[in-house]
Amino acid sequence: MKINCDMGESFGHWTIGHDDQVMPFIDMANIACGMHASDPTVMLETVRLAKKHGVTIGAHPGYADLQGFGRRPMPLSDTELKALFIYQVGALKLLCESEGVALSYVKPHGALYNTMMKDDKVFTTLLEAMQQAAPELPLVVMAVPNHAKYQAAADSCGISVWFEAFVDRAYDEDGRLVARSIPGSTYTDLETIGAQARSLIEFGQVTTLDGTTIEVHADTLCIHGDGPAAVPTARLLNDILRSGKGNAL
Amino acid sequence: MKINCDMGESFGHWTIGHDDQVMPFIDMANIACGMHASDPTVMLETVRLAKKHGVTIGAHPGYADLQGFGRRPMPLSDTELKALFIYQVGALKLLCESEGVALSYVKPHGALYNTMMKDDKVFTTLLEAMQQAAPELPLVVMAVPNHAKYQAAADSCGISVWFEAFVDRAYDEDGRLVARSIPGSTYTDLETIGAQARSLIEFGQVTTLDGTTIEVHADTLCIHGDGPAAVPTARLLNDILRSGKGNAL
Amino acid sequence: MKINCDMGESFGHWTIGHDDQVMPFIDMANIACGMHASDPTVMLETVRLAKKHGVTIGAHPGYADLQGFGRRPMPLSDTELKALFIYQVGALKLLCESEGVALSYVKPHGALYNTMMKDDKVFTTLLEAMQQAAPELPLVVMAVPNHAKYQAAADSCGISVWFEAFVDRAYDEDGRLVARSIPGSTYTDLETIGAQARSLIEFGQVTTLDGTTIEVHADTLCIHGDGPAAVPTARLLNDILRSGKGNAL
Amino acid sequence: MKINCDMGESFGHWTIGHDDQVMPFIDMANIACGMHASDPTVMLETVRLAKKHGVTIGAHPGYADLQGFGRRPMPLSDTELKALFIYQVGALKLLCESEGVALSYVKPHGALYNTMMKDDKVFTTLLEAMQQAAPELPLVVMAVPNHAKYQAAADSCGISVWFEAFVDRAYDEDGRLVARSIPGSTYTDLETIGAQARSLIEFGQVTTLDGTTIEVHADTLCIHGDGPAAVPTARLLNDILRSGKGNAL
Repeated sequence: MKINCDMGESFGHWTIGHDDQVMPFIDMANIACGMHASDPTVMLETVRLAKKHGVTIGAHPGYADLQGFGRRPMPLSDTELKALFIYQVGALKLLCESEGVALSYVKPHGALYNTMMKDDKVFTTLLEAMQQAAPELPLVVMAVPNHAKYQAAADSCGISVWFEAFVDRAYDEDGRLVARSIPGSTYTDLETIGAQARSLIEFGQVTTLDGTTIEVHADTLCIHGDGPAAVPTARLLNDILRSGKGNAL
Repeated sequence: MKINCDMGESFGHWTIGHDDQVMPFIDMANIACGMHASDPTVMLETVRLAKKHGVTIGAHPGYADLQGFGRRPMPLSDTELKALFIYQVGALKLLCESEGVALSYVKPHGALYNTMMKDDKVFTTLLEAMQQAAPELPLVVMAVPNHAKYQAAADSCGISVWFEAFVDRAYDEDGRLVARSIPGSTYTDLETIGAQARSLIEFGQVTTLDGTTIEVHADTLCIHGDGPAAVPTARLLNDILRSGKGNAL
Repeated sequence: MKINCDMGESFGHWTIGHDDQVMPFIDMANIACGMHASDPTVMLETVRLAKKHGVTIGAHPGYADLQGFGRRPMPLSDTELKALFIYQVGALKLLCESEGVALSYVKPHGALYNTMMKDDKVFTTLLEAMQQAAPELPLVVMAVPNHAKYQAAADSCGISVWFEAFVDRAYDEDGRLVARSIPGSTYTDLETIGAQARSLIEFGQVTTLDGTTIEVHADTLCIHGDGPAAVPTARLLNDILRSGKGNAL
Repeated sequence: MKINCDMGESFGHWTIGHDDQVMPFIDMANIACGMHASDPTVMLETVRLAKKHGVTIGAHPGYADLQGFGRRPMPLSDTELKALFIYQVGALKLLCESEGVALSYVKPHGALYNTMMKDDKVFTTLLEAMQQAAPELPLVVMAVPNHAKYQAAADSCGISVWFEAFVDRAYDEDGRLVARSIPGSTYTDLETIGAQARSLIEFGQVTTLDGTTIEVHADTLCIHGDGPAAVPTARLLNDILRSGKGNAL
């Protein structure tokens, strides 16, 4: 089980996150690719930071919408989406190679991630883009109850998928994330976060907001790199995973 | 001797150039990379067009300035420039690979090209970026009297350079292009263009605006893909080069 | 009855339309405001061109999406939409005033126009923005069968509305424009365009694609400023309206 | 003597500064206009915040360069510069009017400010833009030894100028700001800042980095709204000015 975290989300003179403090505790850095956040300089510096800490690097492409931080869905044709996606992956890939490290996976960002999970056509387009441009790289998708559907689509394109779960977000009984607008949807206390992490790691389970236990089989756990809880959450997850027992809080 | 031409300079709803009409007659397509012109969709479509016509593809990176079309110099730190350059080359490289073709060279655009020729530090930074990110690709630079300096700098980084000359621009007696603001600096009639092309191809010479003959040793000839003369110029150069004699007008 | 036309849709080095050829024949220039098309320089030059020909100037604000030309709907909060709208109107207004001419109306562009017609909340937000920022300016909306609804909403905010009809687009029997994807939805021959224009001017009627006659009460007729038919269409409409009889083809 | 401070420099999801904490202590808010920082939403919210605290609002236009935060000089033609400048002032002006407050002055930002002080042609172009677009508004410029030159140029266009001095930057014996790259060029301790402020307020003097006393006649003092010292600096300056004696630290 690996910890992944969005990194490199600063832009020009603006800073988001605590990348240098979080990077030591994570396994996978999802680096923004300049369309919804980041810029070439931030990307290069984040690649160097990940390399320094031996962190695996993934591309984190999003919709081309800096002002909206890639959180607004955009209607794109298949060709537009494919081109936008490959463009971003390619830009980060060569920045990695120029620093002597590899790009190792791809995880779509924000509205593109959500659309991919909801819209089969978009998911297929991204898989085809991976197949054409980077067939050796896994694609990170959300761990959902109907994961078999995503697995089958990816298999048919020869693309590996890594399923991710969230340690600081509440799930509903259908295995979906509770919308941020609902009270209790987001966890900020480390005890709850740690409990959900251990439950995911040891049992592949999550306790939903209404108390049900559901199965969530994840390959990687996502934490958020901004906000006041970012650094302690990263450290906690790192402790849990490194301790090998997952209940060492 | 190869014909190179800037391609893929449209953006979104805006079109520049006659790419589909020019592409059949050129050898090398310098494809803009989304920072000063083009967008991922235009890039993908231009890669497909070049592939269809068997045209070699080069990256044409520029300053990040859509409104100024990359024609305004921008003061960048070494790291900013290197990152910006690799980002663009990488984006186009993966778009090429996704279509089963190779990216074969790099030619900077506009103000970046001019700055590279004028500022040794910028030229060195680009060479180092090539060395780190794409050491196998040649860099296209301008054929100038002091070409040995550029050759030596490139050699020391292990980068090949291709020198290019212009068939539709007047040269001065120092072997520099006459500024566009000077009357007579730009040729639009095919006879003059053809004469300069044949002189470059057969003798490695150009007749300057004041009538002097100077040496200009070029590996490739640049033509411009927009303007009313684009298509006939491309056809003319193609005829001259394919005829094998260079005097077949 | 006035002829309105989208103007100033060029951007940086890219040109769209034939503004200098169309401007002499129109009454109202809808000038793009830099978010979906145009830039400050293009706006200033278009204001000067309109002033030279005595053409009334309107703001043509759109979603902030250059690559998509403002044709992709964007989910915005009320505050975001209001700010985006006022920003653009204000920018053009002061450019007008700096040239000694007035900004006289507002017509939303592309996806913002379509969303305004479909989504009451968006229409209300735009009306409130007008009320706060430019209560003296009319808002151009589409002439639709249920125009009373739009009139009432505008009345309640104290905003005048001008209804516009299209001379080169087919209508369906519900009084809506036939989607561009349907064959026959767009007219390019001047005879059909002239007939629809005269029908709108003289009788307030349009013959739909299936032959029905419907009522369309318009204050202004929209023509399109790009495409090969732009200049002859502008000239034709101008002839029809200036002739005072509308049947002078 | 008034305190002015750059405000509204956030952009989309990115935040800079502590506007809500600084606004209560300042007299003049220089609000960024969306080209180098800010966006329409941030601008509207900053106008509302200034209004709430009774703070005078000024436009803070800059070069169109979000990634460079308007700190990179850009070569623009007179028309380009004039249009860019008026565009931004107009956008903020109408946002102010929509909230029932007035736009009261203009202060260029970053590289545009520096270029205006160094390049007479740029200064003249900005004055002409003011004259055409907003002749009633003062322009804030730097308090320099040769202030008479700026005053004369402004007078000839009928534009008022307000000279500003800096309380947290070291001056050299020529009355210029010491470059940020020089050690000691920037003050962060409140005692030094307070001393320079009181010296400016009471005596129109500054002690330079090498100990000389020079005359600096300022109408307004600029403080910086980001950085850890922003809030205490704003509070300190406010205390000094409100105490009426300027030596109340």
